[in-house]
Amino acid sequence: MIRVGIVGATGYGGRELLRLLLGHPDVHLVAVASTSVAGKPLAEELPAFRKLSSLNFEQFDAASLHDRCDVVFVGVPGKASMEPVAALRKAGVRVIDIGPDFRLRDTKAFAAYYCTDHTASHLLGESVYGLVPWYRDKIRQASLVAVPGCYPISVLLPLRPLLEAPLSEVPVVIDSISGISGAGKTPTEAFHFPEMNENLKAYKLAVHQHTPEIEQELLFKTTVQFTPHIAPLTRGILTTITLRPERTFDPAPFYECYEKEPFVRVLGAGHLPEIRYVRGSNFCDFGWVSDERTGNLLIVSAIDNLMGGTAGMAVQCMNGMFGLEETTGLCWGGMAP
Amino acid sequence: MIRVGIVGATGYGGRELLRLLLGHPDVHLVAVASTSVAGKPLAEELPAFRKLSSLNFEQFDAASLHDRCDVVFVGVPGKASMEPVAALRKAGVRVIDIGPDFRLRDTKAFAAYYCTDHTASHLLGESVYGLVPWYRDKIRQASLVAVPGCYPISVLLPLRPLLEAPLSEVPVVIDSISGISGAGKTPTEAFHFPEMNENLKAYKLAVHQHTPEIEQELLFKTTVQFTPHIAPLTRGILTTITLRPERTFDPAPFYECYEKEPFVRVLGAGHLPEIRYVRGSNFCDFGWVSDERTGNLLIVSAIDNLMGGTAGMAVQCMNGMFGLEETTGLCWGGMAP
Amino acid sequence: MIRVGIVGATGYGGRELLRLLLGHPDVHLVAVASTSVAGKPLAEELPAFRKLSSLNFEQFDAASLHDRCDVVFVGVPGKASMEPVAALRKAGVRVIDIGPDFRLRDTKAFAAYYCTDHTASHLLGESVYGLVPWYRDKIRQASLVAVPGCYPISVLLPLRPLLEAPLSEVPVVIDSISGISGAGKTPTEAFHFPEMNENLKAYKLAVHQHTPEIEQELLFKTTVQFTPHIAPLTRGILTTITLRPERTFDPAPFYECYEKEPFVRVLGAGHLPEIRYVRGSNFCDFGWVSDERTGNLLIVSAIDNLMGGTAGMAVQCMNGMFGLEETTGLCWGGMAP
Amino acid sequence: MIRVGIVGATGYGGRELLRLLLGHPDVHLVAVASTSVAGKPLAEELPAFRKLSSLNFEQFDAASLHDRCDVVFVGVPGKASMEPVAALRKAGVRVIDIGPDFRLRDTKAFAAYYCTDHTASHLLGESVYGLVPWYRDKIRQASLVAVPGCYPISVLLPLRPLLEAPLSEVPVVIDSISGISGAGKTPTEAFHFPEMNENLKAYKLAVHQHTPEIEQELLFKTTVQFTPHIAPLTRGILTTITLRPERTFDPAPFYECYEKEPFVRVLGAGHLPEIRYVRGSNFCDFGWVSDERTGNLLIVSAIDNLMGGTAGMAVQCMNGMFGLEETTGLCWGGMAP
Repeated sequence: MIRVGIVGATGYGGRELLRLLLGHPDVHLVAVASTSVAGKPLAEELPAFRKLSSLNFEQFDAASLHDRCDVVFVGVPGKASMEPVAALRKAGVRVIDIGPDFRLRDTKAFAAYYCTDHTASHLLGESVYGLVPWYRDKIRQASLVAVPGCYPISVLLPLRPLLEAPLSEVPVVIDSISGISGAGKTPTEAFHFPEMNENLKAYKLAVHQHTPEIEQELLFKTTVQFTPHIAPLTRGILTTITLRPERTFDPAPFYECYEKEPFVRVLGAGHLPEIRYVRGSNFCDFGWVSDERTGNLLIVSAIDNLMGGTAGMAVQCMNGMFGLEETTGLCWGGMAP
Repeated sequence: MIRVGIVGATGYGGRELLRLLLGHPDVHLVAVASTSVAGKPLAEELPAFRKLSSLNFEQFDAASLHDRCDVVFVGVPGKASMEPVAALRKAGVRVIDIGPDFRLRDTKAFAAYYCTDHTASHLLGESVYGLVPWYRDKIRQASLVAVPGCYPISVLLPLRPLLEAPLSEVPVVIDSISGISGAGKTPTEAFHFPEMNENLKAYKLAVHQHTPEIEQELLFKTTVQFTPHIAPLTRGILTTITLRPERTFDPAPFYECYEKEPFVRVLGAGHLPEIRYVRGSNFCDFGWVSDERTGNLLIVSAIDNLMGGTAGMAVQCMNGMFGLEETTGLCWGGMAP
Repeated sequence: MIRVGIVGATGYGGRELLRLLLGHPDVHLVAVASTSVAGKPLAEELPAFRKLSSLNFEQFDAASLHDRCDVVFVGVPGKASMEPVAALRKAGVRVIDIGPDFRLRDTKAFAAYYCTDHTASHLLGESVYGLVPWYRDKIRQASLVAVPGCYPISVLLPLRPLLEAPLSEVPVVIDSISGISGAGKTPTEAFHFPEMNENLKAYKLAVHQHTPEIEQELLFKTTVQFTPHIAPLTRGILTTITLRPERTFDPAPFYECYEKEPFVRVLGAGHLPEIRYVRGSNFCDFGWVSDERTGNLLIVSAIDNLMGGTAGMAVQCMNGMFGLEETTGLCWGGMAP
Repeated sequence: MIRVGIVGATGYGGRELLRLLLGHPDVHLVAVASTSVAGKPLAEELPAFRKLSSLNFEQFDAASLHDRCDVVFVGVPGKASMEPVAALRKAGVRVIDIGPDFRLRDTKAFAAYYCTDHTASHLLGESVYGLVPWYRDKIRQASLVAVPGCYPISVLLPLRPLLEAPLSEVPVVIDSISGISGAGKTPTEAFHFPEMNENLKAYKLAVHQHTPEIEQELLFKTTVQFTPHIAPLTRGILTTITLRPERTFDPAPFYECYEKEPFVRVLGAGHLPEIRYVRGSNFCDFGWVSDERTGNLLIVSAIDNLMGGTAGMAVQCMNGMFGLEETTGLCWGGMAP
């Protein structure tokens, strides 16, 4: 049994980690840390887990976690994980961070998009970007994994294989639509039910922090115009990518690399994904249409932002880090309905 | 490994069975039968299961299922399971029926509420009502289990223990609110998204077919006034029970029987359940309030109608029938959010 | 043109008043007061009204409102309207209060259910309960109208005519389901979109403050067991009433009084309302089923809580107070879809 | 009073027309025709209009409508309005068609995108495209108005003024997200509540029939890549336009033409619209962001597809055709919440 701790388990990413790890056959959850509710029983703060765990939330203590855990997941908000991750790494604990702090190699880009300096840049060298199909071998050995952002996962799984295709200079247009769990657990006017129900909006045009992450993992070979939208559902990201290639090409051969990927489902030309088939699962589905009239290639992908887009990918990383079958504890179909 | 077949796997109950059984560590799914899509790959008809199963739907054939399966789940619509269940039992297969045909002992009540005669009444003697906490021992030996209806599960788990309490002659008022997956997969005007979104309604007042099922399992000790409602969500049943006892009493002692039930969570006085804490899980949560002013006892319960209310209870029955730990493959917390 | 002011126009009831009054052919909206956003343009705080009003929010000033307004609507939260209403009445302004402060005649009941003493009880004598079909004549002359609560409107329109029917001593069971706009505009964890979407719950069992209001307007002839529920939609209240009469009776004759009511639609026996047919309208629809088996009478009603349940009823009161056709500015069908 | 008839009043566009026209102060609705429910009372088929209309549906009869109506709205499905419109025009009735049949000037494009030949092309010469801000004068005199499609309205109001701006050869990328009422009233698996709730998808990539309509009304000066998406809400279209200009420019001056448009609200740079502020209203809101990094201009617009996107625009056309104030019967703010 892998002994696991979670720091910041009350956020939405952390709760999904709890759901997955409490049901994982090879995991023994030994510690949950939270600044805001330290001392409180987990099952009282998060009633979804009543009768499943008798743990209490505890204060974060890197040394104590080191003594008890083989690996610690960190699920605190963006910019807040630099400190605990640094402490955990100093104590010698393997860390899987589901936040953004250790994804960008370029600390200037981090400062520009996150509006704060990086205080643990000494760890960026050892941080491995946790996009399993592309960093599988490095993840196995990693001491620190930075799980990709939910939008980037939905973008990179279909786009990364196309870097060798005849792209053009025109920026790739990426319009994503996200469920509202992506905005986190803090109540605000914008996401108060009567305000957001039956609503749609776009946000953070031209400045969303996932833009440099996407461009980094496209190896800076293309510029992206990333525009996120919010729709009235809880889970899911649907991403529509409009590519203007130098010349039309068939993307199918570029996707053969995914044939044996357990959680990437390439639907093919003319077959488009829907959130309903990936909800509650670790899958990323995508398909495409070539528009002969305009010369553009259109790709649409779908993930569950909390599972395939965060916690599921994180657990898949853990499975790899500890030599387990990668699909352990993750192998369910989409919840439809 | 238990070799399992499913007859009628394309309905919403059947799909949830697929989701649970494909992820169950001790189950080998060997056959899925469906009249409407025989010959079609499961993963094509139900894209949520792509890359998880290479089965094709097949025509129903009791003898063939007998040769290959240790147990067969039947998920066809109400009134349509009498025939295949009879054939399966004749062939000697153990059967778990998630439909209503083998729940009522009284064939007159069946005819009155389902508007058809019972054509397999010879099996009612061996049929065991699959409400695990109350029929656990019988289920272990059963050749035929009739999984309770979703509404009755939400009603009986809190009400059944109170049969020894000082009830009165006044009918128990049961107002349930269900998500729309309970109405099944067939598209109709009533459940077309723009008609049902932002809508609420009551239906089948005084004549709902779960009424006699509830009264039977309350051992005919009380009359119930059961009124179901529909609200715009996919999964979940919230049931509010208004009891008028002879005299006020504390229900807590009556619920001590549930202390070790893995999936029944008794929240206590003043603590009320919500669907968000049971969604996607096998739990039934309930709590209560005694109204001193009126003398009434009010109980509220919550389940996920497809999992705790159908497929999860069915798998719990199967686990018992085959000597597995009852919680195997079912032990996740609610999906919140 | 009637010169109208609104105090507390930023709440959900106030916004609906704005929507109705800005479109009302005989109303000139001259003032909107708000403590929290005084000085701010209405169209900036409430972008739904851009290009429709150039008013700025102002500080509440009873004397100034008296000079400029024929009538003032008060839409501040419960317990907060006693003070401004008293000031407005002292200044001689006719007032329509959509909050609860002037509905209960019994200040002890007010204190018990609202947990505060009544500081303007001298006005209770002149306050008229604004349930138009039952207080039409008094409303015409009123200086102060207390618009009924949304739940009571859905309950009283069907129940009030039955006071002469053969009711019994058994408390009437009232289970209502409300959309979330009823909970107001303040963001909270409970109504954060990802928490409340796909959720159901009951709340304030046995202690909801609309209970004494309902019993008062049923002339204390019956006790009610009122249990409110919340479902994931924005607007609407569906109320299910379970009556246990002394003997069965036909309610139809009791409802003949509503034949000419413009906004009460009696659907009859076996015909049940749905929110979709009243959404965005001023109608209350209801129908019933007599259950011969149990002897109970079941009534179901539907309203739009913000319009028929609050602002529409308030405007109907105003129309009456100023001698207009009662339906002026209100005469639209339900928004379906 | 204008005497109005509606042909095809049971569809979603037709129902919204009914809602607007029954509340319109200068309209007398004299006839509603429907093939499927001829003879049935309107208030029975569409219970939202009980107590508001005593009309019965009638069979379509152009001559009879001519005798009784000053104008007839046609709301039948696409491709089905050619015949009744031709008959009505032959009988001399002024017609406002909310369907697509008389929008495209090019019958080859019509045949290509609608997969049928145009059978009333003799009327295309007199048909006026009912985009009020751009065809106001022609609409006043028109005998036949073709109300624009909902997606094109959301695209053209922001894009049409930019035709004189320095656009490039790169196709304009238009990603729209629509509520489900846009798909019409026919129940299908795709829009069955449990399938579409909590779902997102894209559809008709590269082949949507609004593409040639948009390009025609952009005077063929630019190519568009139009990709529609569906999200789980009933009403609303949010459109995100990604323009790649020859050089960056300030769009604000191009939008000064809208200053006095009653229903176009230009929010400006950095201000983005949301569906909640236009729901249930006739407004189109839009704003933009210039991305200096990529050189792109991003515009986001929002409408209520049934009102501002269909029936409201149609009534605005009618108001113009009959010399009424253009905003008559349409002048409400958005329904938020």
